[in-house]
Amino acid sequence: MGKTFPGQIRLMDNPRPTFPGEMALIEALAREFGTPPPPVVLGIGDDCAALAVDGGRYLLWTIDTLTEGVHFDLSYMSLAQLGWKALAVNVSDIGAMGGEPRYALLALGWPPQRDRTGALELARGLQQAAREFGVAIIGGDTVSSPGGVAITLTVTGWVPEQEMVRRSGARAGDLIHVTGVLGEAAAGLEILKNRVKLKPAMKDPLIQAHLTPRPQHQAGRLLARRGLATAMIDLSDGVATDLFHICRASGVGARLEAERVPASPLVKAAAPLLNQDPLDLALKGGEDYQLLFTSPPEKQGALFRAFTQAGLPPPLPLGEVTAGDRVLLVTERGEEDISGAGFDHFRGGAVSS
Amino acid sequence: MGKTFPGQIRLMDNPRPTFPGEMALIEALAREFGTPPPPVVLGIGDDCAALAVDGGRYLLWTIDTLTEGVHFDLSYMSLAQLGWKALAVNVSDIGAMGGEPRYALLALGWPPQRDRTGALELARGLQQAAREFGVAIIGGDTVSSPGGVAITLTVTGWVPEQEMVRRSGARAGDLIHVTGVLGEAAAGLEILKNRVKLKPAMKDPLIQAHLTPRPQHQAGRLLARRGLATAMIDLSDGVATDLFHICRASGVGARLEAERVPASPLVKAAAPLLNQDPLDLALKGGEDYQLLFTSPPEKQGALFRAFTQAGLPPPLPLGEVTAGDRVLLVTERGEEDISGAGFDHFRGGAVSS
Repeated sequence: MGKTFPGQIRLMDNPRPTFPGEMALIEALAREFGTPPPPVVLGIGDDCAALAVDGGRYLLWTIDTLTEGVHFDLSYMSLAQLGWKALAVNVSDIGAMGGEPRYALLALGWPPQRDRTGALELARGLQQAAREFGVAIIGGDTVSSPGGVAITLTVTGWVPEQEMVRRSGARAGDLIHVTGVLGEAAAGLEILKNRVKLKPAMKDPLIQAHLTPRPQHQAGRLLARRGLATAMIDLSDGVATDLFHICRASGVGARLEAERVPASPLVKAAAPLLNQDPLDLALKGGEDYQLLFTSPPEKQGALFRAFTQAGLPPPLPLGEVTAGDRVLLVTERGEEDISGAGFDHFRGGAVSS
Repeated sequence: MGKTFPGQIRLMDNPRPTFPGEMALIEALAREFGTPPPPVVLGIGDDCAALAVDGGRYLLWTIDTLTEGVHFDLSYMSLAQLGWKALAVNVSDIGAMGGEPRYALLALGWPPQRDRTGALELARGLQQAAREFGVAIIGGDTVSSPGGVAITLTVTGWVPEQEMVRRSGARAGDLIHVTGVLGEAAAGLEILKNRVKLKPAMKDPLIQAHLTPRPQHQAGRLLARRGLATAMIDLSDGVATDLFHICRASGVGARLEAERVPASPLVKAAAPLLNQDPLDLALKGGEDYQLLFTSPPEKQGALFRAFTQAGLPPPLPLGEVTAGDRVLLVTERGEEDISGAGFDHFRGGAVSS
């Protein structure tokens, strides 16, 4: 064990606030709303709520909002891409419980001065994602939104009772994996925000990763069906924040090995041109919408066989669950506490993710 | 039959746009999303979507957004009242299907410059409504919203399969009722917007009707359980608009008798002081959150007995369902087509309802 630096929380270079404000608020809200009785199986504090409303399976339920000027900028994102992404981020939450997404409602806030035909372009992107992910859009609400376009999707889905994967099941000794490489969406956002000129072969996949993320719900279902994950979360805020959520819910800590954090090769190539540290983009960039999960060491063989047989890319190990309550990053300089380094959705203000 | 004035759509004096724009958009969205297959029982076009996911009962599901500067003004509405109202308007939608509300998720957009403790005040009002209506808040999302506070609630509930009341069941000859007097919320909004000085005994109940509406889901359940309603909708946009929704879904028309439209006594008293026509407030004001329903003539005795036995105020009849496709208002001057007179949520811009 190397030296630790408690309290030395390194923030990203771009001005993202820290998350404890949001976490404290959500915990205060959870106290206000109380602990719901059965058939509510999971309330506030996971990727989805879960309800035991049908024998043998849980109804999963999630909601996510994307707001103009905070989560997207229509000067570089099309309305069709926005429609896609709004569903994708919700499907990702269903996937993080091991569930299968099925139904969605749309609440669309539209500026009075904006051409309404744009709402149909948004709907086309949304419907394209819905077909791709096997989801039916079955209702919604349309309202005026003078402050900009705001899109909220709420999605339900199913998971067999015995298969649901919570955030709270991680145990010391479990290995930590992600379903794919990291940092591409964050690099894509940097390129878009700063209008950085790069070769299309480098730039385009990074931009696509930001604009039209692909949720990993099929990997999530596989992990759930085979009982291979003890805890899982989707990477919306970045590994540093989201792993901390798992640790907090599970009452454990974690050690990540910096050299194993899988920054995408494209991110490694682009980072110097963006004046970014590829490790920062991979750990704290957010919006990868890969799944981060923990898995017992004795199941590693079964884990890799299952992914190979399903034709999915093998999971990438990046650390292990520990006793304690801190998320530590092991670098050549020792250990660094990164338990606080991430993105706070509730503050913000500039387009940040 | 008197003389009709097709095309002569009288709008309210205040600058509310007409609704065909919103209806046309929603119909275009519905075409884009297609007709979902079973187990979806109801998709776009009613107060809730309905899913046959559990033997014998349907899961009802709705979503509604309230946006600062459009639906509310925090200079005269407390955050606790906003929390209450955001749940009330969703519970009203569940009630309009004859259902019982049960669970909710909250998506809260909060301006970065606004004190976060206000979100807890909002949560207290929301939780008070949740207790009152028998709903558990079981999850949500918090995001930054530079344009102002935006609150979206999505609510689920249950209705026995045989009891669900759609918009589409009205038949010529059915009688049209509302569950209570009309126009109070609209009068209250006028008082608040124009800071009109009236006696508290007159002003306070009207303001309360606007700020903290009471959804009529218990009346809706009663109508559904006893099979007394052929079609039902909640009055969010005003009788003129909402009755037109029933007519369009049912392939019928309607005749309202102006002298039977139950403007509240307080509205009749306050209207002259507000430079408003009480009939306009009652027909087109919106946000009454009473239930508007149709009921066969042979069930009128059972209808009034059921409400009396349940300790609920008797329904108020105001007209009848007709063949054809227009909503006509019968006044001493003849008949007037009011099929187009209502509020369009999707335009707006000023605080209008």
